[in-house]
Amino acid sequence: MDMRLETTQAGFTLSLDGRLLLRHSAAAPCFFVGRGNDSIEMHRGRFEIEDRLVERCPLAHAEIDGERIVLAVMKGQPPRLVIRLEGNALVLQTVDSTVNRFWIRVAADQDEHVWGGGEQFSYFDLRGRRFPLWSSEPGVGRDKTTEITFKADVTDKAGGDYYHTYYPQPTYLSSARYALHVATSAFSAFDFRDRSFHEIEVWAVPERIELFAAPSFIELVEMLSGRFGRQPPLPEWVYNGAIIGLKDGTNSFKRLVKMREAGVKVTGLWCEDWVGIRPTAFGARLFWNWQANETRYPGLRQRIAELNSEGIRFLGYVNPHLCDDGALFKEAEAADYFVRDASGRTALIDFGEFHCGIVDFTNPDAAAWFSEEIIGVRMLDYGLSGWMADFGEYLPADVRLANGMDAKLMHNQWPTLWAEVNAKAVASRGKTGEGLFFMRAGFTGVQKYCPLLWAGDQSVDFSRHDGLVTVMCAALSSGLLGNAFHHSDIGGYTSLFGNVRTPELIMRWAEMAAFSPVMRSHEGNRPRDNLQLDGDAVVLQHFARMTEIYVHLAPYLKTLSLEAAQRGLPVQRPLFLHHEADRRTYTIQDSYLYGPDLLVAPIWQASQEQRTVYLPAGTSWVHVWTGQSFSGGDKITVDAPLGQPAVFHRADSAFGSLFRGLREI
Amino acid sequence: MDMRLETTQAGFTLSLDGRLLLRHSAAAPCFFVGRGNDSIEMHRGRFEIEDRLVERCPLAHAEIDGERIVLAVMKGQPPRLVIRLEGNALVLQTVDSTVNRFWIRVAADQDEHVWGGGEQFSYFDLRGRRFPLWSSEPGVGRDKTTEITFKADVTDKAGGDYYHTYYPQPTYLSSARYALHVATSAFSAFDFRDRSFHEIEVWAVPERIELFAAPSFIELVEMLSGRFGRQPPLPEWVYNGAIIGLKDGTNSFKRLVKMREAGVKVTGLWCEDWVGIRPTAFGARLFWNWQANETRYPGLRQRIAELNSEGIRFLGYVNPHLCDDGALFKEAEAADYFVRDASGRTALIDFGEFHCGIVDFTNPDAAAWFSEEIIGVRMLDYGLSGWMADFGEYLPADVRLANGMDAKLMHNQWPTLWAEVNAKAVASRGKTGEGLFFMRAGFTGVQKYCPLLWAGDQSVDFSRHDGLVTVMCAALSSGLLGNAFHHSDIGGYTSLFGNVRTPELIMRWAEMAAFSPVMRSHEGNRPRDNLQLDGDAVVLQHFARMTEIYVHLAPYLKTLSLEAAQRGLPVQRPLFLHHEADRRTYTIQDSYLYGPDLLVAPIWQASQEQRTVYLPAGTSWVHVWTGQSFSGGDKITVDAPLGQPAVFHRADSAFGSLFRGLREI
Repeated sequence: MDMRLETTQAGFTLSLDGRLLLRHSAAAPCFFVGRGNDSIEMHRGRFEIEDRLVERCPLAHAEIDGERIVLAVMKGQPPRLVIRLEGNALVLQTVDSTVNRFWIRVAADQDEHVWGGGEQFSYFDLRGRRFPLWSSEPGVGRDKTTEITFKADVTDKAGGDYYHTYYPQPTYLSSARYALHVATSAFSAFDFRDRSFHEIEVWAVPERIELFAAPSFIELVEMLSGRFGRQPPLPEWVYNGAIIGLKDGTNSFKRLVKMREAGVKVTGLWCEDWVGIRPTAFGARLFWNWQANETRYPGLRQRIAELNSEGIRFLGYVNPHLCDDGALFKEAEAADYFVRDASGRTALIDFGEFHCGIVDFTNPDAAAWFSEEIIGVRMLDYGLSGWMADFGEYLPADVRLANGMDAKLMHNQWPTLWAEVNAKAVASRGKTGEGLFFMRAGFTGVQKYCPLLWAGDQSVDFSRHDGLVTVMCAALSSGLLGNAFHHSDIGGYTSLFGNVRTPELIMRWAEMAAFSPVMRSHEGNRPRDNLQLDGDAVVLQHFARMTEIYVHLAPYLKTLSLEAAQRGLPVQRPLFLHHEADRRTYTIQDSYLYGPDLLVAPIWQASQEQRTVYLPAGTSWVHVWTGQSFSGGDKITVDAPLGQPAVFHRADSAFGSLFRGLREI
Repeated sequence: MDMRLETTQAGFTLSLDGRLLLRHSAAAPCFFVGRGNDSIEMHRGRFEIEDRLVERCPLAHAEIDGERIVLAVMKGQPPRLVIRLEGNALVLQTVDSTVNRFWIRVAADQDEHVWGGGEQFSYFDLRGRRFPLWSSEPGVGRDKTTEITFKADVTDKAGGDYYHTYYPQPTYLSSARYALHVATSAFSAFDFRDRSFHEIEVWAVPERIELFAAPSFIELVEMLSGRFGRQPPLPEWVYNGAIIGLKDGTNSFKRLVKMREAGVKVTGLWCEDWVGIRPTAFGARLFWNWQANETRYPGLRQRIAELNSEGIRFLGYVNPHLCDDGALFKEAEAADYFVRDASGRTALIDFGEFHCGIVDFTNPDAAAWFSEEIIGVRMLDYGLSGWMADFGEYLPADVRLANGMDAKLMHNQWPTLWAEVNAKAVASRGKTGEGLFFMRAGFTGVQKYCPLLWAGDQSVDFSRHDGLVTVMCAALSSGLLGNAFHHSDIGGYTSLFGNVRTPELIMRWAEMAAFSPVMRSHEGNRPRDNLQLDGDAVVLQHFARMTEIYVHLAPYLKTLSLEAAQRGLPVQRPLFLHHEADRRTYTIQDSYLYGPDLLVAPIWQASQEQRTVYLPAGTSWVHVWTGQSFSGGDKITVDAPLGQPAVFHRADSAFGSLFRGLREI
């Protein structure tokens, strides 16, 4: 890449392979520094973040000194920011230790599109909005105009908004075929509302701003994946069918047998409740003490061995917290492994009728203990093939950490530390690429450790900002940043305020999941109030067929998995990744390419029997269920009754006969 | 007042009669200037206001030059702000024309209280919160945790919040017995969240910041009233009873007769619909063409004369807009009297199924025309004794005005211009202190023109942020800034989403109104769906008794009215105004002094039969209904069944026998 710094009459410009990124003049400076007093308060994974800005000074005066830009408020004033060009990065340094706010304005075109920001659930194209980036619960409803959001807000400040995500990342890709990454873990906000610039705000002076440019989107994504880390290929066992989520104690085994008898292709049984349960006013929750629970699952080790002999893997659940009435809590507290509060005591976090300590992953001994003693010994050695590695967003901003860092600066990094603890455990048993854990939380670098993202807790509905459709946005946005594998809870998770699953919802969700890297079901937060896969014969039969489709596509998916491991391309891709000449594809977020050859347009609204979809120009497309051909370059509408999501394959695909085989299933 | 500017080692201090108000140092400057790009969009009197801050520079370097403070970012830099001390004011001047943001930090004590901000409906003590000051509809519900607010937000972005008010004013009083007023009509925000300073933000460099100090609250309030203008005493005719609001065409006369027969003391009949009605999907609205409507009120002039002969005044309605299908619109447009849009055409404002022009009061001819031809000829000369002078908040920020001023800077001033148009008409007929118009909108200076505030459109309920209780907060806050006379719609106004008046609500409201300067009823926005005074015999009888109480208290009220005209003391007063040594009175907003001698604590919640009230220390209080004595200095609880609001008089009052007479009514 050619990063070029040039002095102009009014200031300077910085361009990257011919793209103008910074255009500085005294009248319109690109850099600002200042100070603010923030307040960040957590309540159950949701944060009230407020800033009182004290200072924001444009750095109007720039002096170019070789590869250095020296910035001051005015000529003759001492420099407040020094920027050194180093490789593909701007390396930032401030001499003023009181500075804790930083802004940069990057030149933008009016018709430019931008994507990224981590895993975004509401808007794939970020242009026109501001995105605060802070790992948190994403909210229930996430749309201030809906009744559910209102109720969640009123009862628990839990409604959320469009930008809330478990996995923020201060990185964006531009349709100008460059990407920008801010090397910081501080709170930041990416503001794409202005027509002529993008403004990035960081609550610290970031160490570096990294720039990437490539001739094509594909190469740009490869480059980012190289930067942030690649996942191993999917485990071979995944391709055998779905992972069935049941948390019904030993009854889970019986139910699994019946589902298999009904024709469901199963590769794994996932029992969150393997650690036992805790009755609360809100229903049964898990007992957060990460080891097999003999009361709920007597003889589990033996049962796992039996399942394995039938070709079924067993998966469990873990998170970075330990409940204060569990045995592991005592062990960790005795060893001084917990995050501390301001008074120096173990910080106890309220999770709703129980309290937990947070294992301090900045303490190498604590991280190693969790990795070895919990995940290594109690999970992998016990026979688990995978698990949900839940949470990662709950580090309060005001706790004390072993490494002495400000918790505000560690908060966003916590998911990556958590992923590393899991990955190290898997690696220690030589099971990288075989043991499969999945996470919802993330941040810069999580790519290197986490083999599979999971989209978190959608509501059990078709809502625009918290339903099925948000999973696609999440897969596409995170995929561009090097997270190749993404999946979700089939049927959604959150059932509150009388909102429950319909058969249609489960079936539409399963149709989408069949065309994703991993099929996994979940009973949801209120299993008894909600329809389950095995609670309706039609739903179960539909699901069985979807698992057949998934298994049928395995040969194709394996090539995508390999491509992901080698090149960092995500399995689920925005249409523009392979059709960049067609700008009409740039804002599409409700259909995706499943590898280069399949275009998937799930039904994501209720009571729809047809689907309108844009097919990229210059390619010939075949509707998989009818064989009908389309030339691309326009919106078309196809029938999409239950069981036939709108899926198309490239007419010239090498997998043509495999795809044509779908009609026989 | 002694304003003292002193150089200190680190900077300077400014004190006022010994009160430290500014404490400047390079490390903690008091003044900031900067730039922002704002966006202010109106939808039916509600504004979406957004700022993108570009610059906020602390003016760290101060040089004192006699009575001047010269402020720069740093030593050796050109000054960005020059402040001259002049009398009781800081006169501000900036040399940089790009500056459009200004901040000042005023030293604060941790236990300081502040009041004012115009007419505030939610919080009387402003400490701990930030108050944007921009005239607007206050919202329906005004509390994001209530269903009504949610529905109003979703259907029409109309829910509002705690700080929304028709009548903002950039003035506050401090418990340190000083007041600060910002001479600006730009958007401003008073931020009282910090423990050690108050921060005021203005979207312009204000002309002046005026300071007032006095040894007592009473004197401070007198001083402010002198500054902003005093109202004439209440018209003599007001004391004869209630003003009955009916908008039922000629049926209004018949209903009035029946109410009088039931014992209601009536001094006026107020018919909003004297201009005729306009049927809309939302029900009957008024026809915004300000002249008597012969269809709805045949022979109205004669009817008014008849009423007058019976001692009943007739009141009407007017606002600054003219509907585009009315005759007066044509006249105004032909004369070029309307505010224009960006393209130079008459700006047409959507009021819901009809559109109006806004008469441009910055055009002296237009203002004079409205004053003389509409209010003078068509209202006063026609026989009206008063009217609701509605609206004043609806000047969009992007229109063009005759005086060439930016509409953003005229928006807040519009209510004052509107009041002046009304006051001039009244004065032109020699009826100042006799013709009674009442307004909800206000701003600095409205005091001089508007003889009576009205609290606007409360919801027909007991809700904390939009119900009965908010009227007290409104009366107290506006009263401290020189608005001596305040009243409200008995029973509330806004009935939406199935929220309707209960008999209890009307009765509790009437109990409060009996102890206020003016009793006036309103049918509300949906008369047919809501209980009316004459719709329930118990309610009517209760109301009749309340009018008797009001009339009984007239001798006392007259002294308050006179005191208001002479000294500027409001009729309704916060408890601390006469009990400033008792700090426990400083935050009370649900009871008030009605003049110095009565303490009124209305029931403002549903289903309450008792009222707990704090009685100021050092005074002996007598409960008016039982004669029981209390020594003050503590909270006490009294029975307060319907008809007996918790009211106390000073044991030493010269009006003791009058107050004791209340027991006989």
